[in-house]
Amino acid sequence: MYSLKRVNFELITIGNELLTGRTLNTNMRYLAKAVTDLGGNVVRATTVGDYVKDISSAINDALSRKTDFLIMCGGLGPTFDDKTLEALSDAVNRPLELNELALEYMKRHYRRRQEGHKHEEFELIPSRLKMVCLPRDATPLQNPVGSASGVYMKHREMNIVALPGVPREMEAIFERSVSPLISDLAGNLFRREGSLKVIGIGESKVAPLIDKAMREYPEAYIKSHPRPGSGPVLEINFSTISESEEMAKNAVKRSMAKLSKLLIRHGAKVESMNDQNFD
Amino acid sequence: MYSLKRVNFELITIGNELLTGRTLNTNMRYLAKAVTDLGGNVVRATTVGDYVKDISSAINDALSRKTDFLIMCGGLGPTFDDKTLEALSDAVNRPLELNELALEYMKRHYRRRQEGHKHEEFELIPSRLKMVCLPRDATPLQNPVGSASGVYMKHREMNIVALPGVPREMEAIFERSVSPLISDLAGNLFRREGSLKVIGIGESKVAPLIDKAMREYPEAYIKSHPRPGSGPVLEINFSTISESEEMAKNAVKRSMAKLSKLLIRHGAKVESMNDQNFD
Repeated sequence: MYSLKRVNFELITIGNELLTGRTLNTNMRYLAKAVTDLGGNVVRATTVGDYVKDISSAINDALSRKTDFLIMCGGLGPTFDDKTLEALSDAVNRPLELNELALEYMKRHYRRRQEGHKHEEFELIPSRLKMVCLPRDATPLQNPVGSASGVYMKHREMNIVALPGVPREMEAIFERSVSPLISDLAGNLFRREGSLKVIGIGESKVAPLIDKAMREYPEAYIKSHPRPGSGPVLEINFSTISESEEMAKNAVKRSMAKLSKLLIRHGAKVESMNDQNFD
Repeated sequence: MYSLKRVNFELITIGNELLTGRTLNTNMRYLAKAVTDLGGNVVRATTVGDYVKDISSAINDALSRKTDFLIMCGGLGPTFDDKTLEALSDAVNRPLELNELALEYMKRHYRRRQEGHKHEEFELIPSRLKMVCLPRDATPLQNPVGSASGVYMKHREMNIVALPGVPREMEAIFERSVSPLISDLAGNLFRREGSLKVIGIGESKVAPLIDKAMREYPEAYIKSHPRPGSGPVLEINFSTISESEEMAKNAVKRSMAKLSKLLIRHGAKVESMNDQNFD
């Protein structure tokens, strides 16, 4: 399965609240799943705090690994600790300049918000000005539900997208503007998963059986996860990426059948799981 | 607040299931919160897949940043894709050797599991042998609920801990063996938080008020988070670290009072929040 030409992604999520454990990083999971579903290969995800130096160093790390596509999330808002644009400008060495299109998107947002309310003139106060000054030659991505535009740019060979950290704003921009970009680049690959619940055999005894199944059907990747239970209980996941949906489906099916047979022969009880039950 | 000498931590969580979005990274959040509560300063968290090259490159990155303390989580089990010990051995350039104490801990685990069951001789099959071969001079950390020991070692100036990825095993080893280590190193610091719910004023207008409050009381860090609502709703978090509990408490209190006053003067409605309600 890894001989396919896949597009490599990295994620950077930004925010002190993620590093103190105050906030569970659901944005990272959303992005990882969305990119994977679109055929992309997420190879690393980094979380840093609200500091220019830390954010730009994470961007430079991704550049030095020749990552194809970097998605950043967080730090695009109006407060002093929203530093992503400054860090991006530093990392790619392009000055921040007032972006007319980003300003137009922001004005539209405030007009939308005021419909039906008393008229209040839009003011470009410093906290807002900061949000519409983008690195030179960056493209704003319209935010249908908030004031902070996303940002797209290409630097050297790397596509860079920055999204706000408010989940519904991040998701709205992703669906509208980022998802089509990724489909174009990484598309035409099909991912398929399957899962088994295995009872009565420990992971160390399952390990050589997994090796055997993977030697016979190397196109499916198999991973076991111990689950709580009175005796040994494992969840075993199968996944594959392929150029055709049919091939992907068959690869998972064959690998699951093979491992099931081996497990049953070793006295385990095997149940198939509904694969939509994540976690 | 940042003039205090703080111990810097990095986290590395390992597993393809985290990068496909199949699994929400709750281990990262647990570790971030636990370390922060013990006075440590988490500066970066990295997630990589089950590949020796990616894991050891993440370890080397942490070493090159002169991180004081690295905690890794995942990849210590018996299957082919459990690569953390191999990657650690590569990164610190110390060979993997059978660790007698780790083997003893593993035997104890299987004896415990068999109490009341029919006797089965412990067998050191290859999948188990792999789990007790640690980098030279590493110390195993006993796992009270599973077969994979944690690992502690010091390399150059960096403390390194590796924990299994099964949440209840990770948490059990952390509480028993890692938490006391961190207290010794990073302890004697007190962290305090507080939160306000603010209704009726947008984040871009709150930004200059936050600047004002932070100039007056720089020892408290203030961060605003937009929340869903029909009009503008913000959650504003205050946090501080101090050498005394009393000082930490007062710093948050003063900063909250100052910002509340400014917000009310600008027409906002301000409510205090129970700070135990994370998320």
